Amino acid sequence: MSHDNLTATLLITCPDQKGLVATVTNMLASRKLNILDLHQHTARTDSRFFQRIKFDLSELEGSREALERDIGEMAARFQMEWKISYSDKKKRVAIFTSKYYHCIVDLLTRWQIGELNCDIPLIISNHEDQRALAETFNIPYHVFKITKDNKAEQEAKEIALLREYNIDLVVMARYMQILSDDFCAAFPHQIINIHHSTLPAFIGAKPYHQAFERGVKLVGATAHYATADLDEGPIIAQGVVDATHEDEVEDLVRKGRDVERIVLAKAVNAHLDDRIIVHGRGTVVF
Amino acid sequence: MSHDNLTATLLITCPDQKGLVATVTNMLASRKLNILDLHQHTARTDSRFFQRIKFDLSELEGSREALERDIGEMAARFQMEWKISYSDKKKRVAIFTSKYYHCIVDLLTRWQIGELNCDIPLIISNHEDQRALAETFNIPYHVFKITKDNKAEQEAKEIALLREYNIDLVVMARYMQILSDDFCAAFPHQIINIHHSTLPAFIGAKPYHQAFERGVKLVGATAHYATADLDEGPIIAQGVVDATHEDEVEDLVRKGRDVERIVLAKAVNAHLDDRIIVHGRGTVVF
Amino acid sequence: MSHDNLTATLLITCPDQKGLVATVTNMLASRKLNILDLHQHTARTDSRFFQRIKFDLSELEGSREALERDIGEMAARFQMEWKISYSDKKKRVAIFTSKYYHCIVDLLTRWQIGELNCDIPLIISNHEDQRALAETFNIPYHVFKITKDNKAEQEAKEIALLREYNIDLVVMARYMQILSDDFCAAFPHQIINIHHSTLPAFIGAKPYHQAFERGVKLVGATAHYATADLDEGPIIAQGVVDATHEDEVEDLVRKGRDVERIVLAKAVNAHLDDRIIVHGRGTVVF
Amino acid sequence: MSHDNLTATLLITCPDQKGLVATVTNMLASRKLNILDLHQHTARTDSRFFQRIKFDLSELEGSREALERDIGEMAARFQMEWKISYSDKKKRVAIFTSKYYHCIVDLLTRWQIGELNCDIPLIISNHEDQRALAETFNIPYHVFKITKDNKAEQEAKEIALLREYNIDLVVMARYMQILSDDFCAAFPHQIINIHHSTLPAFIGAKPYHQAFERGVKLVGATAHYATADLDEGPIIAQGVVDATHEDEVEDLVRKGRDVERIVLAKAVNAHLDDRIIVHGRGTVVF
Repeated sequence: MSHDNLTATLLITCPDQKGLVATVTNMLASRKLNILDLHQHTARTDSRFFQRIKFDLSELEGSREALERDIGEMAARFQMEWKISYSDKKKRVAIFTSKYYHCIVDLLTRWQIGELNCDIPLIISNHEDQRALAETFNIPYHVFKITKDNKAEQEAKEIALLREYNIDLVVMARYMQILSDDFCAAFPHQIINIHHSTLPAFIGAKPYHQAFERGVKLVGATAHYATADLDEGPIIAQGVVDATHEDEVEDLVRKGRDVERIVLAKAVNAHLDDRIIVHGRGTVVF
Repeated sequence: MSHDNLTATLLITCPDQKGLVATVTNMLASRKLNILDLHQHTARTDSRFFQRIKFDLSELEGSREALERDIGEMAARFQMEWKISYSDKKKRVAIFTSKYYHCIVDLLTRWQIGELNCDIPLIISNHEDQRALAETFNIPYHVFKITKDNKAEQEAKEIALLREYNIDLVVMARYMQILSDDFCAAFPHQIINIHHSTLPAFIGAKPYHQAFERGVKLVGATAHYATADLDEGPIIAQGVVDATHEDEVEDLVRKGRDVERIVLAKAVNAHLDDRIIVHGRGTVVF
Repeated sequence: MSHDNLTATLLITCPDQKGLVATVTNMLASRKLNILDLHQHTARTDSRFFQRIKFDLSELEGSREALERDIGEMAARFQMEWKISYSDKKKRVAIFTSKYYHCIVDLLTRWQIGELNCDIPLIISNHEDQRALAETFNIPYHVFKITKDNKAEQEAKEIALLREYNIDLVVMARYMQILSDDFCAAFPHQIINIHHSTLPAFIGAKPYHQAFERGVKLVGATAHYATADLDEGPIIAQGVVDATHEDEVEDLVRKGRDVERIVLAKAVNAHLDDRIIVHGRGTVVF
Repeated sequence: MSHDNLTATLLITCPDQKGLVATVTNMLASRKLNILDLHQHTARTDSRFFQRIKFDLSELEGSREALERDIGEMAARFQMEWKISYSDKKKRVAIFTSKYYHCIVDLLTRWQIGELNCDIPLIISNHEDQRALAETFNIPYHVFKITKDNKAEQEAKEIALLREYNIDLVVMARYMQILSDDFCAAFPHQIINIHHSTLPAFIGAKPYHQAFERGVKLVGATAHYATADLDEGPIIAQGVVDATHEDEVEDLVRKGRDVERIVLAKAVNAHLDDRIIVHGRGTVVF
């Protein structure tokens, strides 16, 4: 859903209580901010409240700082966690890549035709392989070779670079290094990872070989926020494609690629659109 | 989403304007009604506002009549169309059936295991075929044989019976008679129909034969509200299944049955849950 | 694919070698048996050959015994495992059920409208719950209550009963007892089981609760042959449906039911149609 | 399925008759050609026989010409139409493009990572827009501007160019010109087109606007061979994605792009793999 006008999107989560929606909407109405889209969800299991409000900012009375001060005061009263984004301030995305090609090309192509509403000022890799691709899209390409010995040091440099570029979101487009807990902690719910998944799940080495042996009839992919527990972060999007006995291991891998890139793009778009709120180990995706 | 407590669900649509959400939520807050779920959508094309609010009714101050009076006054001010449902008042559903078996058995089975939150006090058919089934589920079964000559008369009797039973929703579970415009007009957006659909659409007689000949790779179904323009009413739910050249016409028909019953049940559930607002020739399904 | 004429279906698997297809088809041609459908697959990983041939039996020269003798001789020469079925001899299916209702009703309904080409002479349960249902369909219903102490004994009785009824296929329609290894061994690749599956897989107790907590966006089901390693048998069919944060645990369970019954029916149909050959721990499903 | 060895693939269709499979397989066995994959289908409606045989060519006795002579003689006897392809002779593909970017980028990316087993010696367009893209992939780019007056003339030049380059397959990657009947006739079943499709189908101008208005819950795409009757050629592959009321027209268009490129790539791969035989107005896709 695109709106060309100046808008803001406010994400809120807090313990549920009476009058929350009225409180928030009154606060916005008092500043002449017309609500364009509102999604609200209350999780029954832990009585937690989630809300996404997108509103027209073109007639804002007072400054953004004043608005955020109002929100902050309200948040303090209701133990709210909140985040606001403005449509005239694009998110800044860094893509991490290794040797696999399909996810990063897909993202860059979508970005070029306007499907991803962000800037991509930076690509980081542990290999030289995608430099030509980065140049085609005029994006600076930084290589940090990772070894057992230099990992902490290299990651510190990467974090510094991400800070320097004011990066809002890191997309691991099949980046084949495990991020350290420290790295994940430095960008909480700001790192999206994609990995294959099969039904049932095959754990350990060579999952596609295991899946092939068992004769799976589906191949899937899961996009999630990277947390210290790498493949166990909150799920954002998932997808599957059909498989048959005619699919050899490399066919399963190819089908996996197709579903990976679709699912990754879907998750990235949900993040860029401010449609995700993390809920414990899961997510609310409005 | 099931909530065991006493709740009400309010559906609203009106021309978009500033402060709508605040107005509605304040009205509810003033009567101590805590909002459980709120979905809101603004259609950009015609600046129309849609809202579904589910709220806890257990601490309502004053009577339901007083609440509805408040809503009515607010609605008058904002040109709102609105509808309210209460969780302690189950919707009453009549199923129309002919000779096909799959949709009605599916609905009755879901109903028996608690998936459909409604009463089913009545089954109407133009054939005797499903009487034994109706008896298994202890539901009165009425047969109205339809001929060219008696159609208007028989429909008048059906409408009278539906009124007598206070029916809220008519589900055409593969009922093979075309309802007259008058019948449709008597139950506006209260009749759900299911029909096959294929990509591309095959119009006219024997659609599965046409689809087979063309070699379709998908078979689909569409559930929609029945309007005077029978198969052109607002779409509620759709689904597809894969097909191949090995599917002969009867296989396409069988696959069509599977998708028809899933899609029909999905649409009926959306209606029973008060998640649908008709928007022109389309729908908002929250 | 339905063919009304008298047909036979031959399933073959053996180590790959030159001239196999020619050998088989010549043998059939020499007895005036016209091939209607032929599927063949060679697994590259272990050079194993798989074939399904459906042929017109109406002009068979000689007896079925003579035909099977020919096949047996050919099989000995090429180390073939084989199985033949005749269209005038319906498979005999026993359904095992416990308290869940959705899978057995689905199977019986499909059977009644002719979607499942088999006889169902027997329903076995560890509970009385489905007796009325069995009676509606005029199928004998046998209850074998299972305790820790009597399990071996009760299973022995069940096996004897299945033998007495000449059962070809056991369908575990959400039968909530774990079959012993002996039971599984008594009906090799003749027992089909269905179980939920989620992406990623949640192992251990309360999988839907785990899946809910993690925020899964898909719910799936897997149908497989039951082997000693119960949920690890060769996969026959799989399916998924979408889920969102609005799905509470019971919604995931309900969606799981829908996909379970579709996937189970698909697997049963593949077996009844003689379209499955087990390949190691996997399957070829033509 | 990929096989690195030298193989050939033979496609056959003819009126069904006894002994066909034996005849074909004997012919191959007599030349020491081991069958790797065999798919066969008999269409019941018109008793037509279809077969795809992939065989190991590494021990071929005699020349390819001699083999093809054998096939030709057999074909004459049984009124067979046939086509043979060799794994060491890649198909040559020309891509036609206009201004839309998503399908051609997708095809070129898949090609670059080895998913499309073909050469792409030529891109043809009626616009300059994709020249830079073509250069990135080092593929000659030819522009033929089309006007009402020069269409026949320009198409004649395009056909000449395609002949000069020995093109086996033309892929219309959202090429926005209607090919003349003469052009289609020059490459029978060698032109693949992709177009959006919705359920139900919206005919005429602005289909996505129509679909949006009606509130469709699915957006689909159909890949087919282009014939004189442009959007009515034999269907090769189809797919859909879910849509909701939150999708505005441009969202439906974006979702349509995703499904178009997946479906187009699937169809192109089926053609390159020699898995398609046209059957009347439909297809057999093995």
